[in-house]
Amino acid sequence: MRIALLLEYLGKDFSGSQAQKDLRTVQSVLEHALPTVLRIKKTKKPLRVILSGRTDAGVHATGQVAHFDIPDQIIDRNVFDAQVLAWGLNGILSADISVRKVAVVPDDFHARYSAIQRQYIYRILNSEQRSPLFQNTHYFLRTPMDVKAMQEATICLPGRHDFSAFKSTNSDKVSPICDVDYAKLLNLGEGELEFSIAANHFVYNMIRIIVGTLVEIGLKKRNPKSLKTALMSGERKLAGPTAPASGLCLVSVKYPPPYANIFAQKAKQGKGDIK
Amino acid sequence: MRIALLLEYLGKDFSGSQAQKDLRTVQSVLEHALPTVLRIKKTKKPLRVILSGRTDAGVHATGQVAHFDIPDQIIDRNVFDAQVLAWGLNGILSADISVRKVAVVPDDFHARYSAIQRQYIYRILNSEQRSPLFQNTHYFLRTPMDVKAMQEATICLPGRHDFSAFKSTNSDKVSPICDVDYAKLLNLGEGELEFSIAANHFVYNMIRIIVGTLVEIGLKKRNPKSLKTALMSGERKLAGPTAPASGLCLVSVKYPPPYANIFAQKAKQGKGDIK
Repeated sequence: MRIALLLEYLGKDFSGSQAQKDLRTVQSVLEHALPTVLRIKKTKKPLRVILSGRTDAGVHATGQVAHFDIPDQIIDRNVFDAQVLAWGLNGILSADISVRKVAVVPDDFHARYSAIQRQYIYRILNSEQRSPLFQNTHYFLRTPMDVKAMQEATICLPGRHDFSAFKSTNSDKVSPICDVDYAKLLNLGEGELEFSIAANHFVYNMIRIIVGTLVEIGLKKRNPKSLKTALMSGERKLAGPTAPASGLCLVSVKYPPPYANIFAQKAKQGKGDIK
Repeated sequence: MRIALLLEYLGKDFSGSQAQKDLRTVQSVLEHALPTVLRIKKTKKPLRVILSGRTDAGVHATGQVAHFDIPDQIIDRNVFDAQVLAWGLNGILSADISVRKVAVVPDDFHARYSAIQRQYIYRILNSEQRSPLFQNTHYFLRTPMDVKAMQEATICLPGRHDFSAFKSTNSDKVSPICDVDYAKLLNLGEGELEFSIAANHFVYNMIRIIVGTLVEIGLKKRNPKSLKTALMSGERKLAGPTAPASGLCLVSVKYPPPYANIFAQKAKQGKGDIK
């Protein structure tokens, strides 16, 4: 039986999403909590959690999706209660991560390979003085920025492009060609900026390098057109620096039919349902 | 010389706003930081910070206002730089409190007595599972609530009323008659609710008891009309319980002319200005 999880986490105290030896990651805390709640003996084949995509250390999520399999001999599909599993997991997990929804999905659903779009928001606070309430979720910049110039620069992003200029060097084997569905910088007032971007996939550090370039444009260290020039060149050195992880949040992962609304289904009213 | 401060703080680790012996409060951390930044010897008359109003332990603020006086013999009015004082204070204060703005104000400005309106927002998350990103700022309720019934109940709040029914017993000598300028419950979707209320002043725990009553209405434990019944009766026992402090935030304090825009003035470009 394949189960999908809708996850929210504050990235600050996670060493990213993917399991790494001796580090606290989203995948590892889930792989530790699940066998406990499901009463699976730890000696069995380890339970593996697959995430829709990697988020770096410090990056947040309000709409990360994961899947894992429960062997049929362990839990009877007819008595399984998704809601009770969510409560159980949230009773074990720390306050900085939560299972917002649980759904039983078809066996061919794959959190990563079935996904057709990832939506992110990068949050900036451009203000003279720091903000306690935004301390963990916003990139704080004190020098006033030209938001119009930044907005002008984003126009070139939607469409199919080679994003090699916005890719950190790593062993990432993903194609640099991404289909960007939208990319918008909203000015919410009082120095609050939100950069929203959606694409079929992203190359490593792509959004943080785009934001780093936009910030240099806002600070008039570079021309609004230089973002397009960097994009066309495919050369990393023509783009700006990598913006901090703490401003970035994975807000949604989109799946095609028949998986489009996997979490919209009404929770099964099983025996274990305490409502 | 009288100075006004615009303050933001996360209430979680404060024992409220007012100075209390051996407790960490907003007033006490400011009264500790100010003499340091201003280079005032601690042996002199202690510097007193006056806040626009009290916020309880756990209550947040994004728009709290305070004032204090600097003796003229200590700092020359002509070389005083408000922006540098803000940076200095924020260099000393912890991450959960920030001086967002500093302004030199007329000597007859008083953070508390000059104020004509206080605006608060109470944030609720009504969702099956808890949210890591809202853990410190929202009142989390799992059972689905009837938001329309809650909204219907709020209609009786605006206007001049005796709010004795929504007042915790304490030694508070403030009049129970409050002029409520507006009171609205917004449904932001995904279980996010925002109750916004503004009045000339509030009685002790008034907003938290109103929200506690609204929540009982949302949970169908009481009728929407019962809020008005409680209000008219003036009896505390007819209102609901006090909702948790963590959902409440003081967002703005309004002053009449000539103080209406004290923080809008452009910061003085003094020698110490590093911009």
